[in-house]
Amino acid sequence: MSVFSEDELSRDVFLGGRIVLHQPRRGYRAGVDPLLLAAAVPARPGQAVLELGCGGGAAILALGARVPDLALAGVELQPGYADLARRNAVQNGLDLKVVCGDLSELPPDLRQRQFDHVIANPPYFRAGAHVAATDPGRRTALGEATPLADWVAAAARRLVPRGYLHVIQRSDRLPDLIAGCAGRLGSIEVLPLAARDGRAPDLLILRARKGGRAAFRLHAPLILHEGAHHMRDGESYRAEVAQVLRDGAALRWPA
Amino acid sequence: MSVFSEDELSRDVFLGGRIVLHQPRRGYRAGVDPLLLAAAVPARPGQAVLELGCGGGAAILALGARVPDLALAGVELQPGYADLARRNAVQNGLDLKVVCGDLSELPPDLRQRQFDHVIANPPYFRAGAHVAATDPGRRTALGEATPLADWVAAAARRLVPRGYLHVIQRSDRLPDLIAGCAGRLGSIEVLPLAARDGRAPDLLILRARKGGRAAFRLHAPLILHEGAHHMRDGESYRAEVAQVLRDGAALRWPA
Repeated sequence: MSVFSEDELSRDVFLGGRIVLHQPRRGYRAGVDPLLLAAAVPARPGQAVLELGCGGGAAILALGARVPDLALAGVELQPGYADLARRNAVQNGLDLKVVCGDLSELPPDLRQRQFDHVIANPPYFRAGAHVAATDPGRRTALGEATPLADWVAAAARRLVPRGYLHVIQRSDRLPDLIAGCAGRLGSIEVLPLAARDGRAPDLLILRARKGGRAAFRLHAPLILHEGAHHMRDGESYRAEVAQVLRDGAALRWPA
Repeated sequence: MSVFSEDELSRDVFLGGRIVLHQPRRGYRAGVDPLLLAAAVPARPGQAVLELGCGGGAAILALGARVPDLALAGVELQPGYADLARRNAVQNGLDLKVVCGDLSELPPDLRQRQFDHVIANPPYFRAGAHVAATDPGRRTALGEATPLADWVAAAARRLVPRGYLHVIQRSDRLPDLIAGCAGRLGSIEVLPLAARDGRAPDLLILRARKGGRAAFRLHAPLILHEGAHHMRDGESYRAEVAQVLRDGAALRWPA
């Protein structure tokens, strides 16, 4: 797959209209995960942010829509998605530099830069695990070719001292993430994300800091939906989550 | 400290009277943690259980009180506590073999045995961290001389294939526990323990299995107390926790 044609794309509205993304109708389509990731990053105006594996740009553009004057950069392995991220940036009036390449071997112009924040929403399934996707782009986006430790290592190399990594990932990969941080990033905090109260958190956001030496922190889960069960279709997000997804608010980490 | 004299001891009732423990008035005194640990272990009658660092025996005797016909063994570094564990076992009519020694160099009679379950409630503070305890026994029980990885390694050596380790520990030590399991134990499950709903889980119970190959699982926190705040002194445990602490029930792990 090189570049998507117009009729392969849908036009989707996120964050209550704050960003509009063209996405492949078939392939990897952004859900709430990149939006929660973007909301979790305490970026300040003027800082530089790199997304590893930026896909069509949902996470980094959501962050750029929330925090003004960020220097945004993304690296994406698949040319079609890299192209899409560039188009989506222009469409949303955001200045995003997208490099097409492998995060394990970043091109020289990225290797020479340091970032205040690195973010990533790496594929959710291990290499070799069954991925039910016939679309090759979706398969690459969902299935893992690069070990999680390599994502963390690439992030650590590009972070300024005291810079933050934020990763959203399946909870069952927490040991791999923690192992990837060892000797590279510290002050790890884990925010589990649970669909409903009392349910196991299927996802988590991991925050780690370059040069951080604080103790590991496991936070109470962020509960996404109201109620103990799925009551009805449509909107059921808890208020603080709806503020993130609908109003473009930041996600508050526990103090 | 060698052996406690009678007037140094208090007599305390646990699990609604199912066990009675003599404990030092000054020194390490069992709270709910060893009871929750004991309740978390899916031991079956006839199985063999070893506790590393058994102190006065609260956890392993609580387990013995719940599950009949277990072969119970404990290792304890401090002679006074080892003696107390023996006395407490006799007092409760339970057959507990206690060995006084260092878990990193278990005596030959323990090294020749394998166990279906190993349990541990290791000290909660790192070596070198400030421990506010003037009592040397309490200091040893609270402060860490042996790295957590050594506890896990000792447990792994003593477990039968498919045997379970259960550890209760502070949440901030999760990375050390996970690192300790690497290459030794798998199928890790983490049950966070939170004082109240919405609070960060200060403690957790980690379960791991020798030869286990299942994915890591992070469960929803077990909430100990009713309400969002401490309302009043005295009893405020949630029903399923009260059943563990008062009625000696097993703690149900999520399926």
